[in-house]
Amino acid sequence: RYGLAEKEDQIGVVTGLAWTSVGGDLLSIEALRLPGKGRMKTTGTLGDVMKESIDAANSFVRSIAPSIGVKPPKLEKWDIHVHVPEGATPKDGPSAGIAMVTSIVSVLTQIPVRKNIAMTGEVTLRGHVLPIGGLKEKLLAALRGGIKTVLIPEENEKDLTEIPDNVKQGLEIIPVAHVRDVLSRALVRTPEPVEWDEAAEEAAAAALKSESEKPGRVAH
Amino acid sequence: RYGLAEKEDQIGVVTGLAWTSVGGDLLSIEALRLPGKGRMKTTGTLGDVMKESIDAANSFVRSIAPSIGVKPPKLEKWDIHVHVPEGATPKDGPSAGIAMVTSIVSVLTQIPVRKNIAMTGEVTLRGHVLPIGGLKEKLLAALRGGIKTVLIPEENEKDLTEIPDNVKQGLEIIPVAHVRDVLSRALVRTPEPVEWDEAAEEAAAAALKSESEKPGRVAH
Amino acid sequence: RYGLAEKEDQIGVVTGLAWTSVGGDLLSIEALRLPGKGRMKTTGTLGDVMKESIDAANSFVRSIAPSIGVKPPKLEKWDIHVHVPEGATPKDGPSAGIAMVTSIVSVLTQIPVRKNIAMTGEVTLRGHVLPIGGLKEKLLAALRGGIKTVLIPEENEKDLTEIPDNVKQGLEIIPVAHVRDVLSRALVRTPEPVEWDEAAEEAAAAALKSESEKPGRVAH
Amino acid sequence: RYGLAEKEDQIGVVTGLAWTSVGGDLLSIEALRLPGKGRMKTTGTLGDVMKESIDAANSFVRSIAPSIGVKPPKLEKWDIHVHVPEGATPKDGPSAGIAMVTSIVSVLTQIPVRKNIAMTGEVTLRGHVLPIGGLKEKLLAALRGGIKTVLIPEENEKDLTEIPDNVKQGLEIIPVAHVRDVLSRALVRTPEPVEWDEAAEEAAAAALKSESEKPGRVAH
Amino acid sequence: RYGLAEKEDQIGVVTGLAWTSVGGDLLSIEALRLPGKGRMKTTGTLGDVMKESIDAANSFVRSIAPSIGVKPPKLEKWDIHVHVPEGATPKDGPSAGIAMVTSIVSVLTQIPVRKNIAMTGEVTLRGHVLPIGGLKEKLLAALRGGIKTVLIPEENEKDLTEIPDNVKQGLEIIPVAHVRDVLSRALVRTPEPVEWDEAAEEAAAAALKSESEKPGRVAH
Amino acid sequence: RYGLAEKEDQIGVVTGLAWTSVGGDLLSIEALRLPGKGRMKTTGTLGDVMKESIDAANSFVRSIAPSIGVKPPKLEKWDIHVHVPEGATPKDGPSAGIAMVTSIVSVLTQIPVRKNIAMTGEVTLRGHVLPIGGLKEKLLAALRGGIKTVLIPEENEKDLTEIPDNVKQGLEIIPVAHVRDVLSRALVRTPEPVEWDEAAEEAAAAALKSESEKPGRVAH
Ligand SMILES: [Ca+2]
Ligand SMILES: [Ca+2]
Ligand SMILES: [Ca+2]
Ligand SMILES: [Ca+2]
Ligand SMILES: [Ca+2]
Ligand SMILES: [Ca+2]
Ligand SMILES: [Ca+2]
Ligand SMILES: [Ca+2]
Ligand SMILES: [Ca+2]
Ligand SMILES: [Ca+2]
Ligand SMILES: [Ca+2]
Ligand SMILES: [Ca+2]
Repeated sequence: RYGLAEKEDQIGVVTGLAWTSVGGDLLSIEALRLPGKGRMKTTGTLGDVMKESIDAANSFVRSIAPSIGVKPPKLEKWDIHVHVPEGATPKDGPSAGIAMVTSIVSVLTQIPVRKNIAMTGEVTLRGHVLPIGGLKEKLLAALRGGIKTVLIPEENEKDLTEIPDNVKQGLEIIPVAHVRDVLSRALVRTPEPVEWDEAAEEAAAAALKSESEKPGRVAH
Repeated sequence: RYGLAEKEDQIGVVTGLAWTSVGGDLLSIEALRLPGKGRMKTTGTLGDVMKESIDAANSFVRSIAPSIGVKPPKLEKWDIHVHVPEGATPKDGPSAGIAMVTSIVSVLTQIPVRKNIAMTGEVTLRGHVLPIGGLKEKLLAALRGGIKTVLIPEENEKDLTEIPDNVKQGLEIIPVAHVRDVLSRALVRTPEPVEWDEAAEEAAAAALKSESEKPGRVAH
Repeated sequence: RYGLAEKEDQIGVVTGLAWTSVGGDLLSIEALRLPGKGRMKTTGTLGDVMKESIDAANSFVRSIAPSIGVKPPKLEKWDIHVHVPEGATPKDGPSAGIAMVTSIVSVLTQIPVRKNIAMTGEVTLRGHVLPIGGLKEKLLAALRGGIKTVLIPEENEKDLTEIPDNVKQGLEIIPVAHVRDVLSRALVRTPEPVEWDEAAEEAAAAALKSESEKPGRVAH
Repeated sequence: RYGLAEKEDQIGVVTGLAWTSVGGDLLSIEALRLPGKGRMKTTGTLGDVMKESIDAANSFVRSIAPSIGVKPPKLEKWDIHVHVPEGATPKDGPSAGIAMVTSIVSVLTQIPVRKNIAMTGEVTLRGHVLPIGGLKEKLLAALRGGIKTVLIPEENEKDLTEIPDNVKQGLEIIPVAHVRDVLSRALVRTPEPVEWDEAAEEAAAAALKSESEKPGRVAH
Repeated sequence: RYGLAEKEDQIGVVTGLAWTSVGGDLLSIEALRLPGKGRMKTTGTLGDVMKESIDAANSFVRSIAPSIGVKPPKLEKWDIHVHVPEGATPKDGPSAGIAMVTSIVSVLTQIPVRKNIAMTGEVTLRGHVLPIGGLKEKLLAALRGGIKTVLIPEENEKDLTEIPDNVKQGLEIIPVAHVRDVLSRALVRTPEPVEWDEAAEEAAAAALKSESEKPGRVAH
Repeated sequence: RYGLAEKEDQIGVVTGLAWTSVGGDLLSIEALRLPGKGRMKTTGTLGDVMKESIDAANSFVRSIAPSIGVKPPKLEKWDIHVHVPEGATPKDGPSAGIAMVTSIVSVLTQIPVRKNIAMTGEVTLRGHVLPIGGLKEKLLAALRGGIKTVLIPEENEKDLTEIPDNVKQGLEIIPVAHVRDVLSRALVRTPEPVEWDEAAEEAAAAALKSESEKPGRVAH
């Protein structure tokens, strides 16, 4: 089953695309949301560049939390674990960035990811999508694996001229410039924003706290 | 005794299967549950890939805690120690994943593991079982060690054609696709789920806390 | 888009200038301000020298917080994440110091950075700008990337004699001796200082605390 | 004095047996119990395998704490320091496991260890004793060092046929299969178990806490 | 400007003297005092020996805090950052010890350091000044850099016979045996001691605390 | 001055003896007691074996704290910093163990160390003194450095036959078997023991705490 598209829409499971010396491959990315303290755990024999790309993806998502319906203090109550099977295979590089963002947003919002979609693209702290290498090998692997739709960086659109026609006919290839475009394609529904005014929330919390700490509210 | 099946059903003791340059071997995996703070300790000269497979197994188990009868806050009151004797022998690889899950579930639920069963298979964060290498060597070691039943990944079922008939006759070989199948075979009884509604529990806890913190409950 | 000037004024996004064996390049530096505890996170395959230059930039900014309108206790409520795409390319050296300062000040004050400006210069803990290497290559990259204004260390002004005339005509090159000069050029508006008297603030906080902790304020 | 049996029964001092390229040697193991927070410190130029064997020994002992008269919460009030002189000599391997258990039990219970006993054997998380190498060299060192009794793993009993008769006559050699057998031989008296029902204790503690936190117990 | 004497008396900025394979150089040392928790941060590509010399300098200063007018509990409210530009140049060795002490004392007391002074000497935990190497090269660099006064270890006084006369005429060279002598020369004014009786202060703090925690101070 | 006996009795300053490829040398060991949290800091380019010997010395001292007049909870209010100048010279080995114990006891008790004494010997967790190497070279260095009295391990007494007569005549050489003997010789006065009954102290502290936490002690 590994190297194939997912069989159903799942929360936190995203298909990335890897490019190695022996060709392209599907990269299954899994995230879990656990009760915790806002920590990020990563496993799957990931190199430093991939670990940092998860850090960057995570910070980006935290910075837009209200826009995906998550109030920031809630983030301190959960840990996130991102795992990339198969554990025996080392993985590295920044090009799974947008897949990491999608996986994290999916577990935070509990909105499933469409099963027939794959994606590749580095992500910046602002959610911009940067170009990647190995486009041809990655698209071939997607086709082989039964993927229907592939999201690629807009800056790689120019490289599509080198892609065989049968690949371009077998796949819906969608260039994306920002994570916004990724999420609207990859999640089965769009997250609802929540209103969040940090200053107002802090004031309310402080008021509540001082009230409950006040001793001697004794009704005689 | 090492390299042989266990003599009795024990809590937290699971037989895995290792594959080394000199053939297959039984791998005894032990877990303990100790009073603590939700930490995981691992010993036994384990390589990074095996350590990460324990991390992944642990996160998976935490994510399904209510379904095995464990309320999540209880997890923060225990530490788990996973040890793989013999300490002088380095061990690595992800293929003990389902054995790790079984061991952790057994200590959390205090349900013993069947003594004549061995297992091999990588586990994902969703509890899916991924294929492993060295199936033939592992099954031979199981037979030699007096094992009756071996759980193998469903995706390795196709490799059974290369296994000698005497091995297939001497062992009950059961392909598994998900940890569910593993636990129902390996534990002496099925864990009872417990109801858990995080939001409701949090609200109750908060109410209780605020009640007990409220000063001035003075009966005059 | 990478290697080109930014398209709009953005908060926390600053264009630095890198100098490598294959010439100069634009270096996009991104910072985010997140709810947190005063921690600094850095990503982008940064070497130790660049990481330390971010530490120094950060301490400098903290030391002048009131002068940019930020009361010091506020700094303990935020984390800052500085990221330098592209993750696959290692970066090092101290010469992005003033860009780091600008990026951090921008996220703390939420004042955008002018889009057509680039800068290079090491920064000291007092905000002094130290000279850098590779001036020619860096200026060429700036010109190529559509930059209009480049801030360089005053101590590199003498090296301008070696710069081709077309480069000097195509760019506004401004020597700077202190971060003050950098911020006044790079931010779209000047931060408003805030009054901050540590001793007075501490006394007020202590008074407030002792008041609210005082039990028995009972109105009979 | 090093390389000789201890002169008196001491708390926390156990004689192990080392096997090196130049033959066997007595290994003095010392533990101390200090006021602390449940931490373990190890010194003596110990390799990772020996450090992990101390971790495993420690977890085993914690898991049986009530059976040696120690209520688990008490363990969080002490640190344990295990030291193996001589500091200039590197030591490694898992075979001091049962000696580590004995040393830790001795300091926790403050029951001295018999002075003329030595021991060798890896220990599992369940207290089972696993076989070791270098039996002959270790027994020779014990004889030389004035040891009267040596505990060896039951699974090494078969190797006694290769041991010279004078060694077997000069030493009482006792095969052991579980730490139970080790402690009953090595400690000068058997620890008294203490009753411990975690759930009941927690409930009692909670009740007490809530009582003492309840404000307003005012006798008018 | 680097390699030259400072232009004005500054708080926390001290000129040390480095000795490298290519000769002597001025070493600018900068410290900042920031709101914090008593931590020390060091940057500037410093080797382990120089980092430890900062640790030693810091402990010495903490041990004499009352004698420079700083009550010890105050030290837990500040972090100190010591930075040695230029970040691209590795620095190491213990001989900047007295410069580190001076820099730390300057930021703690907010007393500026005289601008035309440079210094070299290892410092002990008691504030004694130990001899250094490269005296000649260091003095030449000081002269070149416009320094007027150089503090050297008393134990290096004997090496002055090898120093050219023009150097000795161009510089005021002052041998020092203890940090006391360094501070009295290098700071623009002498710090005022503060009375500090730890036992008395603790008792007072405890009394105050117990008073404010005492519930039921109710005026009926 | 380095390589010579101390000029006066000082608190926390002890003379050890080092043995290197170029002969023996005096090793000045300095400790400081600082307000803190029971932490140990070590500096001076110390190897792992020497660092662990300081850990062992520290645990030994903590275990006998009442016998030197220090109540254990007091230890949690101080940090100790052990420094061995000269920072540029790497030092290693366990043989400074008894000097480390002496230095730590001196700072904890504030009793000075006699100035004309030097010492060498590894220490165990029970305070036993183990033999060392390089006795001849160490004694020569002591003589050269103006030392009057040298403490050596009892087990090295047999090596005195190889020491030249003039060395034995110029030094008072005292074999020691336990740290008790070291402290009685090296400190200018014997520490007064303090009574300490952990159980009783804990009960008293708990009673006090519960008393002060009890709300509602209102005298109407
Ligand atoms: Ca694959
Ligand atoms: Ca890539
Ligand atoms: Ca085996
Ligand atoms: Ca495997
Ligand atoms: Ca580029
Ligand atoms: Ca540079
Ligand atoms: Ca020996
Ligand atoms: Ca062994
Ligand atoms: Ca220079
Ligand atoms: Ca030096
Ligand atoms: Ca010397
Ligand atoms: Ca030695």
